[in-house]
Amino acid sequence: MNILIINGPNLNLLGVREPDTYGNQSFDDYLFILQEKYSKTKIDYFQSNIEGEIINKIHEFGFSADGIVLNAGAYTHTSVALADAISAVETPVIEVHISNVYKREKFRHHSFLSPVCRGVISGFGMNSYRLAIEAFLNY
Amino acid sequence: MNILIINGPNLNLLGVREPDTYGNQSFDDYLFILQEKYSKTKIDYFQSNIEGEIINKIHEFGFSADGIVLNAGAYTHTSVALADAISAVETPVIEVHISNVYKREKFRHHSFLSPVCRGVISGFGMNSYRLAIEAFLNY
Amino acid sequence: MNILIINGPNLNLLGVREPDTYGNQSFDDYLFILQEKYSKTKIDYFQSNIEGEIINKIHEFGFSADGIVLNAGAYTHTSVALADAISAVETPVIEVHISNVYKREKFRHHSFLSPVCRGVISGFGMNSYRLAIEAFLNY
Amino acid sequence: MNILIINGPNLNLLGVREPDTYGNQSFDDYLFILQEKYSKTKIDYFQSNIEGEIINKIHEFGFSADGIVLNAGAYTHTSVALADAISAVETPVIEVHISNVYKREKFRHHSFLSPVCRGVISGFGMNSYRLAIEAFLNY
Amino acid sequence: MNILIINGPNLNLLGVREPDTYGNQSFDDYLFILQEKYSKTKIDYFQSNIEGEIINKIHEFGFSADGIVLNAGAYTHTSVALADAISAVETPVIEVHISNVYKREKFRHHSFLSPVCRGVISGFGMNSYRLAIEAFLNY
Amino acid sequence: MNILIINGPNLNLLGVREPDTYGNQSFDDYLFILQEKYSKTKIDYFQSNIEGEIINKIHEFGFSADGIVLNAGAYTHTSVALADAISAVETPVIEVHISNVYKREKFRHHSFLSPVCRGVISGFGMNSYRLAIEAFLNY
Amino acid sequence: MNILIINGPNLNLLGVREPDTYGNQSFDDYLFILQEKYSKTKIDYFQSNIEGEIINKIHEFGFSADGIVLNAGAYTHTSVALADAISAVETPVIEVHISNVYKREKFRHHSFLSPVCRGVISGFGMNSYRLAIEAFLNY
Amino acid sequence: MNILIINGPNLNLLGVREPDTYGNQSFDDYLFILQEKYSKTKIDYFQSNIEGEIINKIHEFGFSADGIVLNAGAYTHTSVALADAISAVETPVIEVHISNVYKREKFRHHSFLSPVCRGVISGFGMNSYRLAIEAFLNY
Amino acid sequence: MNILIINGPNLNLLGVREPDTYGNQSFDDYLFILQEKYSKTKIDYFQSNIEGEIINKIHEFGFSADGIVLNAGAYTHTSVALADAISAVETPVIEVHISNVYKREKFRHHSFLSPVCRGVISGFGMNSYRLAIEAFLNY
Amino acid sequence: MNILIINGPNLNLLGVREPDTYGNQSFDDYLFILQEKYSKTKIDYFQSNIEGEIINKIHEFGFSADGIVLNAGAYTHTSVALADAISAVETPVIEVHISNVYKREKFRHHSFLSPVCRGVISGFGMNSYRLAIEAFLNY
Amino acid sequence: MNILIINGPNLNLLGVREPDTYGNQSFDDYLFILQEKYSKTKIDYFQSNIEGEIINKIHEFGFSADGIVLNAGAYTHTSVALADAISAVETPVIEVHISNVYKREKFRHHSFLSPVCRGVISGFGMNSYRLAIEAFLNY
Amino acid sequence: MNILIINGPNLNLLGVREPDTYGNQSFDDYLFILQEKYSKTKIDYFQSNIEGEIINKIHEFGFSADGIVLNAGAYTHTSVALADAISAVETPVIEVHISNVYKREKFRHHSFLSPVCRGVISGFGMNSYRLAIEAFLNY
Repeated sequence: MNILIINGPNLNLLGVREPDTYGNQSFDDYLFILQEKYSKTKIDYFQSNIEGEIINKIHEFGFSADGIVLNAGAYTHTSVALADAISAVETPVIEVHISNVYKREKFRHHSFLSPVCRGVISGFGMNSYRLAIEAFLNY
Repeated sequence: MNILIINGPNLNLLGVREPDTYGNQSFDDYLFILQEKYSKTKIDYFQSNIEGEIINKIHEFGFSADGIVLNAGAYTHTSVALADAISAVETPVIEVHISNVYKREKFRHHSFLSPVCRGVISGFGMNSYRLAIEAFLNY
Repeated sequence: MNILIINGPNLNLLGVREPDTYGNQSFDDYLFILQEKYSKTKIDYFQSNIEGEIINKIHEFGFSADGIVLNAGAYTHTSVALADAISAVETPVIEVHISNVYKREKFRHHSFLSPVCRGVISGFGMNSYRLAIEAFLNY
Repeated sequence: MNILIINGPNLNLLGVREPDTYGNQSFDDYLFILQEKYSKTKIDYFQSNIEGEIINKIHEFGFSADGIVLNAGAYTHTSVALADAISAVETPVIEVHISNVYKREKFRHHSFLSPVCRGVISGFGMNSYRLAIEAFLNY
Repeated sequence: MNILIINGPNLNLLGVREPDTYGNQSFDDYLFILQEKYSKTKIDYFQSNIEGEIINKIHEFGFSADGIVLNAGAYTHTSVALADAISAVETPVIEVHISNVYKREKFRHHSFLSPVCRGVISGFGMNSYRLAIEAFLNY
Repeated sequence: MNILIINGPNLNLLGVREPDTYGNQSFDDYLFILQEKYSKTKIDYFQSNIEGEIINKIHEFGFSADGIVLNAGAYTHTSVALADAISAVETPVIEVHISNVYKREKFRHHSFLSPVCRGVISGFGMNSYRLAIEAFLNY
Repeated sequence: MNILIINGPNLNLLGVREPDTYGNQSFDDYLFILQEKYSKTKIDYFQSNIEGEIINKIHEFGFSADGIVLNAGAYTHTSVALADAISAVETPVIEVHISNVYKREKFRHHSFLSPVCRGVISGFGMNSYRLAIEAFLNY
Repeated sequence: MNILIINGPNLNLLGVREPDTYGNQSFDDYLFILQEKYSKTKIDYFQSNIEGEIINKIHEFGFSADGIVLNAGAYTHTSVALADAISAVETPVIEVHISNVYKREKFRHHSFLSPVCRGVISGFGMNSYRLAIEAFLNY
Repeated sequence: MNILIINGPNLNLLGVREPDTYGNQSFDDYLFILQEKYSKTKIDYFQSNIEGEIINKIHEFGFSADGIVLNAGAYTHTSVALADAISAVETPVIEVHISNVYKREKFRHHSFLSPVCRGVISGFGMNSYRLAIEAFLNY
Repeated sequence: MNILIINGPNLNLLGVREPDTYGNQSFDDYLFILQEKYSKTKIDYFQSNIEGEIINKIHEFGFSADGIVLNAGAYTHTSVALADAISAVETPVIEVHISNVYKREKFRHHSFLSPVCRGVISGFGMNSYRLAIEAFLNY
Repeated sequence: MNILIINGPNLNLLGVREPDTYGNQSFDDYLFILQEKYSKTKIDYFQSNIEGEIINKIHEFGFSADGIVLNAGAYTHTSVALADAISAVETPVIEVHISNVYKREKFRHHSFLSPVCRGVISGFGMNSYRLAIEAFLNY
Repeated sequence: MNILIINGPNLNLLGVREPDTYGNQSFDDYLFILQEKYSKTKIDYFQSNIEGEIINKIHEFGFSADGIVLNAGAYTHTSVALADAISAVETPVIEVHISNVYKREKFRHHSFLSPVCRGVISGFGMNSYRLAIEAFLNY
């Protein structure tokens, strides 16, 4: 099985930003653990702060990968273009969030992506990514 | 570990209602499989169509169970009382949905429960319950 | 033909509440007249102030009765769960109101039930029930 | 008894427009059946696509007829003038719709006419007209 | 004088839930003090998490008691049915809240009950109940 | 000076409709008095229930009359087409209402016509027309 | 007859502010002309930029004057207190505006005063005051 | 090919109204040029200020013409009845506007017609009609 | 104990305005009774129709009095400045209303003051003031 | 004449994505046909999924090209920056859409670009581009 | 150069109110420092809690001062009259706020004054006043 | 001291775009003057039309610079991602605008950035940048 994890804007700062809240673990460290745990699954990773580059990557993997785990960060709430990219490709996408977005500001409660994703997982910290991979493996 | 699964209104009809969509499997059958798979975990189950009885059950388990998996069905979108019950108890609650509620009518996009739950899992069919249990086990 | 009439919250007070407006006739008295008039039709009756018990009753009759006449009272305007129950069963449901709800407070103008009922009859006093039965008989 | 049926815009196309949905029966044919069935009742009929002509007709009959059955079609949702006409006359008016308007686009859920009509009957096909006549006869 | 106090959902947890905020005093203990203080007044008490049971109780006492003190908890903000019950009975009802609801989430600022109650008392802790009884005694 | 008075839908019923409120005076009687009083001014009159005919009349007089006094009745609140007609012609238009529309239903508080009229006079009974003529004479 | 004219905030600058638009005539000059023209009518005048002082003046004259002509300026759109003052007194009040407020910013389209005034006259320049006096004289 | 052009309210004033903006060319003159240019295409023309007459014309041509070019003017923004007429007939309709309606008042940004037309062309002056004909010829 | 009662706009007319509704008792008379009843408590009184003077008075007493009972009348619904004044001082404030404001116009349902007051008492006539004093004495 | 066509996000997938709907023709193939047909016109082409790169391209051509045909895809509905770019340059821009956006989700009905473009063409498939070129040639 | 600083409601409490947040410095002390620093500039100062007095002061200085620095406090969000005063005078006005109002309650995000002021400076503590003076000096 | 100035979309056209309004001065020329004036402060500069590149730059300088002056142009109103970037870094950010955005279209009145910036300066032309630097120097 072949899965792509995409992280959107500001998620490159995980482990640096607000360490009291998010801990000292960078996403690269967490990714290494995931890849160890799911050694039979090919897990690719991409991060960008640029909306259009995320779209490019979805196009690139969206006809060959078995699943995409997408944490689009703030673009979740503003990007119709990202939603269209998800609709346009064949690979199913699962939307994940580290924090429970529904506990935060009101403008984070709406997602343009949810209606075109297979499902949504929100609020389980780094575990949200693992649960998404579990969801693909059990489908 | 001790986990309670609660199903809200109309979920007693799973396996009966719209079998083309939801299949012929009743929740009881699925529960049996879950209990088999997580044999070290005590999994209790409760279903009611009455909002106040669900609140009663949350009160009953909410100071002793390790986790509650709650699919509140339509009460998700209308019940402040249920949200208050979740806030009042100590056991963490995970909100689950079988379907991806964000693909459905607009009034199903808002949840009174999400801001007081630990996290939300929506759209993975019966698997949503299993992922919630995984989330509790990995916390 | 087998028809179930369901009355929702506060409708048990018909004949007691505001007699100047609603008259001294209780629903039981009216039901007797209806049953006389439509003697070839089996007309069952159920009233409850508890939302979930109305759902239970819809489940119980919703795969065997030929029609349900539902005056859900105030739950008309607030209950997604009741609407889901109507969608889940096979028996068609007609929504009725004694008063013309559109002449009353604005929050009574919206019904969660109307989009999942076969039709709506509002404003004809007790006659609204009779017209609903006529509608089932002529379908 | 003397009843006027008024059909508003596009209802002249009944039997022509979308025959798969609405059948091949024109309103004239249906009217003939109605008049047969209620032979003791004088049933007049008027159709116009022009809002103001419908107002004229309501003025003409609104002080002499015993009842008006009005399917105002799309003007239901946009015409304050029609509502004022109904308020201005003495004859009671019943609002009818062939389809269940609450299953359709959101802008069809609001009616300017409902608050000034005696009652509303929606969703019973051609039968909606018959039920309205029944309602007048039983008042 | 004969007064009924009704507590709605989650208020059975007073003294248990969030003791730092609400203290260790259960409502039963407080009720005992109230009854001592107003020994000439008969004070009945009822609590339920089920909306319809509260309606039942209002019907039961609403034609004989001199006053009802109602803390409907979360149902304050969502229950049209409860408001209808208050309108339907003869006994006046005073709406009370322990906390100042206007300091809390926005959805708690609207009450369906206030327009049909005699008055509203909000924000005085357990004292809110006592002030309501004073209000009845001084009427 | 040459002034045209236009009355919109349902205003043909003045003197007939609700005589307790509006009196027994028809607009024709009032017009006669106006014409007497302002004998040096040519006062034409037109009434129609048809929106488009009012537009036609505005076109016809809108390049030659010195002023138009328009009581558009319910079309005030719904007709963009009437507003466009007023914008398109050269004759200034004064919007009048017999009743104080701001005391009535909320949908009567908005006027599409006001922003394209010279001014608005509302609430002075039949006198509203006379004040509008005064306004033209004093301009 | 005894009439009071009240001007609200910033109207003391008439004749000074934006003379190209409003001309060089101060309100005092205009008032003199009015008093000349209606010499049989006692016309008092008051201006203040302070909301509460206008309320005081309405209280002072509101039980003895025959009419109040009120241009409340910007307080028209924000002052519930002024509206309450008008409701509390016995003298009828006519709301006037020099400009056509419906041609200006959207927040000027709503008036808290209109529903409690006898009528509204807007858009006729200084003439708006004269028309209001005419309206009182003809009542 | 057989095409009908329909112009709605106030468009009869083209060439008369605001000549600085719209030029001196009447629609009749422009129509002559169009007919010259597309001599192989039969181009009919209809204008009315009456909403219902436009509906009548759509019914008349809507089962025989190959295309309808509709500039409904202000009715674009208010007429559900016109939208229903377009839905009811078989001939495809293209919505055109002379000006770019999106540069104008907000209430002109919404069209009831667009969702039931084949396409929309807005902002190209008289050329909008020509482009619509091109669109039909190239379909 | 030292308590200040503040009455806002139009409340100086109590006993004068609408005597059928409010009775003939002026606030001064009522105040005398209150002072008699709570003779151990120093009760000061202030009334003004000027928003800023009420703010001045809150500043003056807000660091020395034990409690302020504030009926801000119409300023309740519009004055952010008054709310800021309450926040700025140390003395707790209780918001009172004579009528049940939730039975009145919608714009009276929102209070800028409630979130910064200790509590709210609404609907008990003159008794609302007494209940507020009781609340201070029992705190 | 020198025209630039710009395609926004996801339009690089034309011919690949949903071939049943959009056909097998890529935009490059269609462009070739356009260039053949309008051989006297220089037609440049640019596509990007990155909002800022589209802005860069508008800046680059916006002072030299004769026209820009812009299908901004999803950025149409969310990008104020793109609208500002169009305002900032001298070359006129025509907004085009392949599908009729008004038949799709509500958030696609609003365009930030329309008010700053010369005109809008929506719903004619690939032909929308050709009509835009026609519009430039006929201006 | 001649500059007037105006402080609105509650700002007289600076240095007294919430000293942990705002420090012990009164505005008078700060003003002294400002006057020292800009000794060539005449800096007048006015504070009032009364909306109308602030308007009076703007009228008084608004045709002679070179600049007005206005911190209108809570009136920023509610006073159309203040905005009109700023529009009416010739002296440019700069709106300042001590705190960053956009971090506070939502109703503080809207300012009636901003559209009629030269510019806005918000969030720099007492420094906001100094920056405004700098802005006038550099204009 | 080390300060970074960031300009967002379309601000590269300063001096080119609409020279009558913005003058002929490019930002580079202005920057040179600023650097001269504040020669002891290191002032870096970055401009991009790409949202994600601005985020990258904020990340790059956000843990080392002493202050960031950000004119995000149109992204101010649409970019949650930019707001998150500001929250994530340690360097304080001041939001500036050349024009007074509150005088422009309504959608420019809302800023996602303001609540996470130290302060906002809007409407002083190029001087807005200088005032922001002053604000950093005086903090």
